[in-house]
Amino acid sequence: MVFSSALIENAVTELSRLPGIGKKTALRLVLHLLKQDQQVVDQFGEAIIKMRREIRFCRVCGHVSDGELCAICSNPARQRETVCVVENIRDVMAIENTQQYHGLYHVLGGIISPLDGVGPEDLAIDALLSRVREGDLREVIMAISPTIEGDTTLFYLSRKLAEFPVRITTIARGIAFGGELEYADEMTLARSLSGRLPLDSYVKNGRPSE
Amino acid sequence: MVFSSALIENAVTELSRLPGIGKKTALRLVLHLLKQDQQVVDQFGEAIIKMRREIRFCRVCGHVSDGELCAICSNPARQRETVCVVENIRDVMAIENTQQYHGLYHVLGGIISPLDGVGPEDLAIDALLSRVREGDLREVIMAISPTIEGDTTLFYLSRKLAEFPVRITTIARGIAFGGELEYADEMTLARSLSGRLPLDSYVKNGRPSE
Repeated sequence: MVFSSALIENAVTELSRLPGIGKKTALRLVLHLLKQDQQVVDQFGEAIIKMRREIRFCRVCGHVSDGELCAICSNPARQRETVCVVENIRDVMAIENTQQYHGLYHVLGGIISPLDGVGPEDLAIDALLSRVREGDLREVIMAISPTIEGDTTLFYLSRKLAEFPVRITTIARGIAFGGELEYADEMTLARSLSGRLPLDSYVKNGRPSE
Repeated sequence: MVFSSALIENAVTELSRLPGIGKKTALRLVLHLLKQDQQVVDQFGEAIIKMRREIRFCRVCGHVSDGELCAICSNPARQRETVCVVENIRDVMAIENTQQYHGLYHVLGGIISPLDGVGPEDLAIDALLSRVREGDLREVIMAISPTIEGDTTLFYLSRKLAEFPVRITTIARGIAFGGELEYADEMTLARSLSGRLPLDSYVKNGRPSE
């Protein structure tokens, strides 16, 4: 592609490093930015630089944070007896968006995956064990994706946590809302059958809006 | 959406101002940037800020430029008798990518569109007339999109240019390569019939690679 300007070529190259953005999209974005006021573009670039420069990770749970403790750990309204173990900060955001969970989190920073060279020592597992050892936790919820690696991590963690007097639970696997039974895979369907619930608990808990 | 961090929320808001990028995609990009080294993110933000701050527009043709004259106008290898009139810098880049044009350009900065409040006085038409008046131009190629507004602009310009001893041409309208006759609209098909070419000129010019 011919850009006729080293400045534009540079900006296009940088933008096209982002996932899912190719050279053509990057050029479209650059030409859009070119039409904006300089102040708007300065604000755009500085917000990103500042974010990367000043972001911190919560000393307790590992979630992104503007200070030493994240907004969730430092919120006095959160239930401190429940901790939800997740793979990464995106999962925290996904669960927070449901507005149905009021406990704390623990971000592992990945899952055990020998093929990718990720072992238990690369994850925040010791920090989790310290929290369980020291704190007054009563329940550890495993909110880990139901993949091979996820299940490996789940079993590893549950063995490590077995010596502590905490209840260990895992999020339910089953048919998603709006999903069709006939298109569900066998594993999911089997799990949703073996994990069946009494109808009154479904009416009470399954549909929070009713 | 809950971000748990003002820094991240800010960066997401800024990124989601770009065309075609919503909050979810912006969050994905921010989390990607968060995983990069600070130096990489600094370079990313600064390339965009610098581009907007230092970009200039060519004094002669209006194309983007790193200096007073753009890379095309200051290139001694370009043919100086032909000028190609286009709507915007994206069109210059599109034509440059064909590597088939070796003349100069003139960027109008838009097309005449009364509905959008764009009149001839908002475009770089006077600058074009000066170039034709002063220069030793022999041909003005109108490479303007064949829309209602594009045709309005084309007729306005051709009337203005009529008094000068230059050849005025327009890019061919017709069936695109790979296009199917039966799916072409009537206007295009009619134009491609009325603008038909002798077969030997097609063999000689229509397929430059042969």
